[in-house]
Amino acid sequence: MFKAHIEIKLKKGVVDPEGKNIEKTLHLLGFDTVKSVHSQKVIVVELDAASKEDAAAKVGEMCKRLLTNPVTHDYTVVIS
Amino acid sequence: MFKAHIEIKLKKGVVDPEGKNIEKTLHLLGFDTVKSVHSQKVIVVELDAASKEDAAAKVGEMCKRLLTNPVTHDYTVVIS
Repeated sequence: MFKAHIEIKLKKGVVDPEGKNIEKTLHLLGFDTVKSVHSQKVIVVELDAASKEDAAAKVGEMCKRLLTNPVTHDYTVVIS
Repeated sequence: MFKAHIEIKLKKGVVDPEGKNIEKTLHLLGFDTVKSVHSQKVIVVELDAASKEDAAAKVGEMCKRLLTNPVTHDYTVVIS
């Protein structure tokens, strides 16, 4: 069994309203030293596969077909 | 300037509908070897602080006051 840790973030230039709102609220709460906030998403998939390479290939296909949007997302996958 | 990488996940036993839905959809798409899927959230905060310890203390307070819910969330913070 392999565990894939897929970290999905917005591409540079894509607006991140959640991050912006958190930043604003932190400032309102008095955290003046906060310079920027970005939100990301992690999906952890446990799957069976013949090898680590096979698992990585399957997870890559999952990302393409369901988990990420190539227009707005960059993602990294770590298999363990 | 320090960068805090805050990974927020649901506590054990808390229902993760997003993860469950992704799992179901992956099965429907033919990824039969998927055993489980969990969703998590990452918030990246860039902030000024006197030291790494000071940054960690500030981020801990942000987590308590705004970013996490102690009833449902576990979180880890990595400062770099």
